[in-house]
Amino acid sequence: MPTAVSPLAVTLPELPPLAGVRLAATAAGIRYQDRTDVVMMEVPSGSSAAGVFTSNKCPGAPVDWCRASLRGGRARVVVVNAGNANVFTGKAGRDACAATAAAAGKLAGCPARQVFVASTGVIGEVLPHDKLTAVLPALREGLAEDGWEAAARGIMTTDTFPKATTRVAQIGDAQVRITGIAKGSGMIAPDMATMLCFVFTDAKIPADALQTMLNKGVRGSFNCTTVDSDTSTSDTVLLIATGQAKHSRVPAADGNAARNRMLADFSRALNDLLLDLALQVVRDGEGARKLVKIDVTGAVNARSAKRIAMTVANSPLVKTAIAGEDANWGRIVMAVGKAGEPADRDRLSIGVGGVWMAREGAVIPGYDEAPVVAHMKGLEVEIAIDLGLGRGMATVWTCDLTHGYIDINGSYRS
Amino acid sequence: MPTAVSPLAVTLPELPPLAGVRLAATAAGIRYQDRTDVVMMEVPSGSSAAGVFTSNKCPGAPVDWCRASLRGGRARVVVVNAGNANVFTGKAGRDACAATAAAAGKLAGCPARQVFVASTGVIGEVLPHDKLTAVLPALREGLAEDGWEAAARGIMTTDTFPKATTRVAQIGDAQVRITGIAKGSGMIAPDMATMLCFVFTDAKIPADALQTMLNKGVRGSFNCTTVDSDTSTSDTVLLIATGQAKHSRVPAADGNAARNRMLADFSRALNDLLLDLALQVVRDGEGARKLVKIDVTGAVNARSAKRIAMTVANSPLVKTAIAGEDANWGRIVMAVGKAGEPADRDRLSIGVGGVWMAREGAVIPGYDEAPVVAHMKGLEVEIAIDLGLGRGMATVWTCDLTHGYIDINGSYRS
Repeated sequence: MPTAVSPLAVTLPELPPLAGVRLAATAAGIRYQDRTDVVMMEVPSGSSAAGVFTSNKCPGAPVDWCRASLRGGRARVVVVNAGNANVFTGKAGRDACAATAAAAGKLAGCPARQVFVASTGVIGEVLPHDKLTAVLPALREGLAEDGWEAAARGIMTTDTFPKATTRVAQIGDAQVRITGIAKGSGMIAPDMATMLCFVFTDAKIPADALQTMLNKGVRGSFNCTTVDSDTSTSDTVLLIATGQAKHSRVPAADGNAARNRMLADFSRALNDLLLDLALQVVRDGEGARKLVKIDVTGAVNARSAKRIAMTVANSPLVKTAIAGEDANWGRIVMAVGKAGEPADRDRLSIGVGGVWMAREGAVIPGYDEAPVVAHMKGLEVEIAIDLGLGRGMATVWTCDLTHGYIDINGSYRS
Repeated sequence: MPTAVSPLAVTLPELPPLAGVRLAATAAGIRYQDRTDVVMMEVPSGSSAAGVFTSNKCPGAPVDWCRASLRGGRARVVVVNAGNANVFTGKAGRDACAATAAAAGKLAGCPARQVFVASTGVIGEVLPHDKLTAVLPALREGLAEDGWEAAARGIMTTDTFPKATTRVAQIGDAQVRITGIAKGSGMIAPDMATMLCFVFTDAKIPADALQTMLNKGVRGSFNCTTVDSDTSTSDTVLLIATGQAKHSRVPAADGNAARNRMLADFSRALNDLLLDLALQVVRDGEGARKLVKIDVTGAVNARSAKRIAMTVANSPLVKTAIAGEDANWGRIVMAVGKAGEPADRDRLSIGVGGVWMAREGAVIPGYDEAPVVAHMKGLEVEIAIDLGLGRGMATVWTCDLTHGYIDINGSYRS
């Protein structure tokens, strides 16, 4: 199902080499024809790793594999395929992960448990891992430090544009780089949207510190976005540090104040990068024509604000109204009210595009509709919700719900 | 936005008079032209009442009014308008309810608090209650015991067919009747789906017993259905007993075993009627082409089963797959897993149309696909989910998600 590039697409930025990371993509014909569908990423011995995975209770076999591998805190190779998610595939799925990791580990000269695997695509079909392992030697031959774009393209499913970004950060006196690629949330098969994200840095950071920063970063980025409320069985974010940059040593002990100070700028840059990638995924949400930012203030606490924001972001009536360029604040009131969180209709304020439209239980008489109408016609829509109850705040991002979503997901798989 | 009648529509049944209930509808031109939009229903002095309302934290003014009126447990008149929901309208909205109730009460010779009001339609616009009160005298003149169909039609918004049903039940030696009408879930404006349901019986039942039975009945019917996961600000179910039937006296004391025995058949008939009406609403869900039943078994408890069933029923990926006649069990696995309830991928079984397709973490090799494909092409789709963990069960109903939903809700209001 070839689709036009999302109107919200961003151009791939320049991605300079990152010391220690080499990447390659090739076509294994697992599901797609005439395109790359297997990606290998290799880092030097001693690289540390952190990961965050789907909260879905029915995770794919690669997620189980990565969770187990992460216990060692070490990574050497990442192998990703597009077209088959290797989810709900029982023992055959587990065997596919083990066989792929063993083959890649043998090539790289590392234990299978230092190989991370990820798969995205159709659910419930056994991954033909023979096809995958057959291309690994050639893939490894092709590894190159300028392979970023090839890798970003090789992990796409029905993504309409490749997603990547890069940042620099200071650690002590040295500058380090962080670069990440992501895919989501399109489908060919179609099956569920699958979000994969791989982030690398040349910094030398212990695995536990990486994990702490990644948890925090994902909380403020990917976990604040939604396309269609359906949590994939395959969501995976990996952060791997090659340790090739020359900077003063990051202390090993966790919770260390000196360590926190030292990594403050890195953590800021990582959060910024993760949000950039997360928003690229939302910009490529299935059928998306508009990027929507929802700011909630005045909730009883931050958790409540987040739940209200997510309820609004997932409301099909709000999302279809935005698709129709209708600043339908009544539907936003409805979505706030259904969230199950503390809310008082008569203290609630709703604004769109910087204009407050409704306040204290009623529409604001004579509010200026013209800038709101103009705002709704744009590619980016901002909704403000103030509960008037407390100091809880949250921001989430979503996209509109259009005929494109039904087209992509309502057609028969075969 | 004229739409064709839902392919899932049911024919209006014969609705015999119900002792004590008289109904009428008329055109007040509140929003629609050339159709009835105000309905009056009157019952004799001494009629008892019970009600269940939206859980939305931003309810409409009529919901607030009805909740307050219900404290008296008495009803004489119900006035309903279509086209304007009188929601988020502040003091003007409260005044509209009070003025309507005062005018109707004066005509019927009862306190305003024995008048129940309900409104459905656009949100955030002040209800022009002058237009409404102006037609009340003529409406009252037109009250008739055969006004059921007129009432069912007068409360429609973008409903594509009128919804009503009737049952008989035994209380002691006597036969009583229960008849209800409902509307939902379409929109013209479009604003959010609003569900209204009015049920009458000629039985003589104390208000507290009515309320207990209604709570239970709604739990097993309306609260087990979803069209689009968006909880309206106006949902209202009223149950009014005229007491005109001749049957032995229902004991006043609540929790009385003799009373429970006496009302057992009534309660059964009421539950049956409520489910019938609730399914009529789902059959007219916006854009619906298929009615979907989801049976969950083997959950850790009933509450968990219900949450899992509702998560599947609200998953846009499951609903679009059904629209595409695709028995996409992978998406069902995803939805089960994202519910946040106990689930074990490797004990999970998924069936469609009576055929188990996936079991113990993988597809069932060689399962018979032909009957599944045939089942998916029908108007009614049945999904079975067994968690394999405990004895918790639940059944919920929904509809598919089609282009029709986007058409209805994605066009600009004006």
